Amino acid sequence: MLYLVGLGLGDAQDISVKGLQAVRRCSRVYLEAYTSMLTVGKEALEEFYGCEVIIAEREIVEQETDDILREAAVADVAFLVVGDPFGATTHSDLVLRAVKAGIQYHIIHNASILNAVGCCGLQLYNYGETVSIVFWTETWKPESFYDKIERNRRTGVHTLCLLDLKVKEQSLENLMRGRKIYEPPRYMSVMQAAEQLLHIIDNRRKREEELAMTEDTICVGLARVGAKDQKIAAGTLRQLAGQDLGDPLHSLIITGRMHPVEIDMLKLFAVDDSSFDKLIIVDGSSYFS
Amino acid sequence: MLYLVGLGLGDAQDISVKGLQAVRRCSRVYLEAYTSMLTVGKEALEEFYGCEVIIAEREIVEQETDDILREAAVADVAFLVVGDPFGATTHSDLVLRAVKAGIQYHIIHNASILNAVGCCGLQLYNYGETVSIVFWTETWKPESFYDKIERNRRTGVHTLCLLDLKVKEQSLENLMRGRKIYEPPRYMSVMQAAEQLLHIIDNRRKREEELAMTEDTICVGLARVGAKDQKIAAGTLRQLAGQDLGDPLHSLIITGRMHPVEIDMLKLFAVDDSSFDKLIIVDGSSYFS
Repeated sequence: MLYLVGLGLGDAQDISVKGLQAVRRCSRVYLEAYTSMLTVGKEALEEFYGCEVIIAEREIVEQETDDILREAAVADVAFLVVGDPFGATTHSDLVLRAVKAGIQYHIIHNASILNAVGCCGLQLYNYGETVSIVFWTETWKPESFYDKIERNRRTGVHTLCLLDLKVKEQSLENLMRGRKIYEPPRYMSVMQAAEQLLHIIDNRRKREEELAMTEDTICVGLARVGAKDQKIAAGTLRQLAGQDLGDPLHSLIITGRMHPVEIDMLKLFAVDDSSFDKLIIVDGSSYFS
Repeated sequence: MLYLVGLGLGDAQDISVKGLQAVRRCSRVYLEAYTSMLTVGKEALEEFYGCEVIIAEREIVEQETDDILREAAVADVAFLVVGDPFGATTHSDLVLRAVKAGIQYHIIHNASILNAVGCCGLQLYNYGETVSIVFWTETWKPESFYDKIERNRRTGVHTLCLLDLKVKEQSLENLMRGRKIYEPPRYMSVMQAAEQLLHIIDNRRKREEELAMTEDTICVGLARVGAKDQKIAAGTLRQLAGQDLGDPLHSLIITGRMHPVEIDMLKLFAVDDSSFDKLIIVDGSSYFS
């Protein structure tokens, strides 16, 4: 049996009771560690589970799935995923291969960032399509995520932006020389995401396009959702570009049309409480009719 | 301290380890029981937690929150919610009142239907706005949810439809006479939701409107997601109208444009495996360009 177990978003104890029972039953436990992270490391998980945890790097997950499946055919194997097994990323490939090999699988769900962002008070059924904001490089500055935000804003719904992370990336030189030397991990912050959006707004303003959002659009920055030291900051895009929310992971929400209760909730997290109502009026009148 | 604890979607053991620790610390434990349900009753929770669980009916949650907050001001109180505390419904009101009264709150997240539907293989970031399909009556047959599905289909994204449930509803007569006699609970099935959608499609076809979806659109019915006996069925809307998925709760997904891996996943759950590829071509050519 192959167990796909969601770990939730905070630390070792965010696993469900059912998930913990499954893990303790398994003879081998893998942790998918390249699309997200908890606030604790593998050692904390090993101590809590009472067993060894094998880190499944990108190479293992995408290329060496065969080993995992071979074991799962004869014993109980757990594949742990931060958040929900089908949350921000998908492990459909693993499931499809398991089914093809005649191996039973069982999914144990948990919170993912896609539903845990509800803690800021914006209602989850008022979100449009989720977007991913990628790290820009000197030569590659895609703006496609902005177009999706625009589409959501046009219908008045909120947009959750998942922010890029680079774990175990190789420099072009090391990659070409086949050297397994990795760059330090990088996690996009709310500040960086806001900076990139401000650039795009500048570009489009110069081209005299109608703007779906401006520097004054109300956004919400979230850091380490579900952890003890989680942080939420609500304010204009420009304000968030100046907010350091600390350690990863971060997420950013671009608001759409808001219900009064949603506004009341966001005020709990306002960067500048005194001007919050005025800011919402400015943003609303600039786009929503 | 007021703990808002998500219970996840299956049974008593889907609570997180952190959530269970919080519940066992609390002197009073409420269960919100009118917007969703587990596959087990209050007794199973009480046995597992080792404490009494007080059912918070709609009246308590909306009108008698004061009692809960008065207790939370002097002791640890848990408010349990099926799914995630901010999942399909919102408990913003409780949080806002707690903050106003100077009471600390702590949210313990869990899986909600909004992310657990990932188990059918449709990627979560390819969903548009979530819609709610309500029970029609003889005189009230709203179609507004169809318009939202249309908007999602137009941009090629999937739509999760949450299906209505009526718990502790009073008949108009009993309500007017102030009699606390309640109707038996009703939970909309995938069959019923599909029937209502087929009616709307008929209506719009008669009015010669362009159709965002037809009888042949690929949909996914899900029942008891996260429970041992969960069921998933993928097929055309017409096929799903003939599928009995058993006990509640049910959800329905209207697909948008699909990635090949998404199609491979859906095939695992196809009502009629042999014709699935052909059906997808029919649906795709009828709407997506």
